[in-house]
Amino acid sequence: MITRLQIRKPDDMHVHLREGDMMREVVPHTAGVFGRALVMPNLKNAVIHGTSAARYRDEILRACSELRLPFDPLMTVKLTAQTTTDVIKGAYSCGVAAVKLYPEGVTTNSTGGIRDPDQINPDVFRAMAHNGMVLCVHAEEPGLFSLDRESGYLRHVEKIATAHPNLRIVIEHITSRDGVEFVHRAGPNVAATITVHHLLITLDDVIGDKLNPHNFCKPIAKREADRAALVTAALSGNPKFFLGTDSAPHAQDTKECASGCAGCFTAPAAIELLTEIFDAHGALPGLESFTSIFGAQFYGLGLNMGTITIVKEPWEIPATCGAVVPFMAGKRIGWRVAK
Amino acid sequence: MITRLQIRKPDDMHVHLREGDMMREVVPHTAGVFGRALVMPNLKNAVIHGTSAARYRDEILRACSELRLPFDPLMTVKLTAQTTTDVIKGAYSCGVAAVKLYPEGVTTNSTGGIRDPDQINPDVFRAMAHNGMVLCVHAEEPGLFSLDRESGYLRHVEKIATAHPNLRIVIEHITSRDGVEFVHRAGPNVAATITVHHLLITLDDVIGDKLNPHNFCKPIAKREADRAALVTAALSGNPKFFLGTDSAPHAQDTKECASGCAGCFTAPAAIELLTEIFDAHGALPGLESFTSIFGAQFYGLGLNMGTITIVKEPWEIPATCGAVVPFMAGKRIGWRVAK
Repeated sequence: MITRLQIRKPDDMHVHLREGDMMREVVPHTAGVFGRALVMPNLKNAVIHGTSAARYRDEILRACSELRLPFDPLMTVKLTAQTTTDVIKGAYSCGVAAVKLYPEGVTTNSTGGIRDPDQINPDVFRAMAHNGMVLCVHAEEPGLFSLDRESGYLRHVEKIATAHPNLRIVIEHITSRDGVEFVHRAGPNVAATITVHHLLITLDDVIGDKLNPHNFCKPIAKREADRAALVTAALSGNPKFFLGTDSAPHAQDTKECASGCAGCFTAPAAIELLTEIFDAHGALPGLESFTSIFGAQFYGLGLNMGTITIVKEPWEIPATCGAVVPFMAGKRIGWRVAK
Repeated sequence: MITRLQIRKPDDMHVHLREGDMMREVVPHTAGVFGRALVMPNLKNAVIHGTSAARYRDEILRACSELRLPFDPLMTVKLTAQTTTDVIKGAYSCGVAAVKLYPEGVTTNSTGGIRDPDQINPDVFRAMAHNGMVLCVHAEEPGLFSLDRESGYLRHVEKIATAHPNLRIVIEHITSRDGVEFVHRAGPNVAATITVHHLLITLDDVIGDKLNPHNFCKPIAKREADRAALVTAALSGNPKFFLGTDSAPHAQDTKECASGCAGCFTAPAAIELLTEIFDAHGALPGLESFTSIFGAQFYGLGLNMGTITIVKEPWEIPATCGAVVPFMAGKRIGWRVAK
């Protein structure tokens, strides 16, 4: 029986760190465990230029430095109707790793997103491919029934991926069997991140019993067959699937209210919950690839130096982390990252 | 253009009035408009005997009498594994109109419900049929995916309805196209109530944008095709479909929390919202049948005396009614019941 596991420092290829006090509150949960994380640009004032991405990176690094946490935030900018090839080149020269496509209005701070992906200037995609930048897609078709939005957006991804075979595309936080099958079928330029919470919950964990706002996220968790397809993909050892937690902190009073925000704050126990899942399937030897290798490889990054140690030691996910209720707060779990 | 409409006093064939302070808070919203209402038995201590139903009825009547509201509560008892033919006879002699079947654990205070409907003593159904009592069914199969629970329970209803053709059965608060089609297909002993909220919302209104706990109910609202089927059924003039609001008050802090209660408090604007729906479909002449005739006929009751007048007059659903946030709080609507 494995009771102690050493893996290469993981990468979180999709995280929301916010700004200011909230950022300082949540960043240790990510920076204390992950070597790098791809930081989403959907701040209240969205990050759309390289210069603001660089400023945001500095803010994150200052917070980590005060905490003496070594951490390498990988930055993103948000694609808008105003994004030009010059914006892309500028972002590249500021060190931005990826460009995030949000369809208009599908999630937190996604206003000002893309209404019609067919209208995006192909030169923008060419400039990204030319500079080795990755396109990250929140794949949900606005206007469709919530459970059909991801499936309904795949045709847009297919079009872009086919027209730009040299552009690497990540479908973020896939939630459906259709999404998994699409990634398998698509060319080598298409991969997907999988969150921890979508491996664990279905829609029933949001609305099936009492209403649970802390399991409410976008895209919404779907049926058991979808969850099972995600688990299979995560465990498969197929390098097209890697970890992106989409950890998204919202203050408790913005979740437990009449108009609750979407997002699960998984960072405080992401690796631990994931270890439980891999352990439950007798797949612990595959954990490191999913958390620490496949993402880096797809992004063309070197692997992280250093390791983390995960030990079989029961603990309880705290009820709150500052103003935020973490995902599965209060749950007792069997694995813990050694500090 | 119709701007004033007089209809026979309506019946709400499914309502939750609670007890004590909450009952006194909410009962005027029902008793001020409806002549009668079928009062559900799922109190904290469930109403399972005629004597407690009679006591509960007295409590409601006392509150209405203090408010000088004429009102005739129709009472129900909850079916349990301990319900005998004697319990049914006793309930009948106390004036109980209907018996409610809750599958174990599917909704508010439904513990102690029926685990396996095949295990119900057929003599209990025979006693109900013999005494002209109606079987009201919360038709959801526990354990299934939330959106499939209603469809999955219809086979149980079919079995009971076929075995007991003289037993009148109401499928409560139907939410699915499958449910509508089943009622059409079933014998004349099967009818269904339709709520106001299921005519107005889909799952997207709960989880499609921000999370809306005040649209969260059991059975959960489903797809647009399901909503459309319900609207068609309500407007159809088919006497198998009639109003049962399932108005279910929960204090605001038990909805806007980490573990939210299921239920929409529609009573403060039920008839008004319904009038809007019928008006939008040019079907105002059919409103009275749905609200005031078909239910009474199915239950074998005389029609209500008296009328209510609904006038075209804009108003706003209040933000709160005591401790409860009503369904569609703050919404401006065009019709109002004249006081």
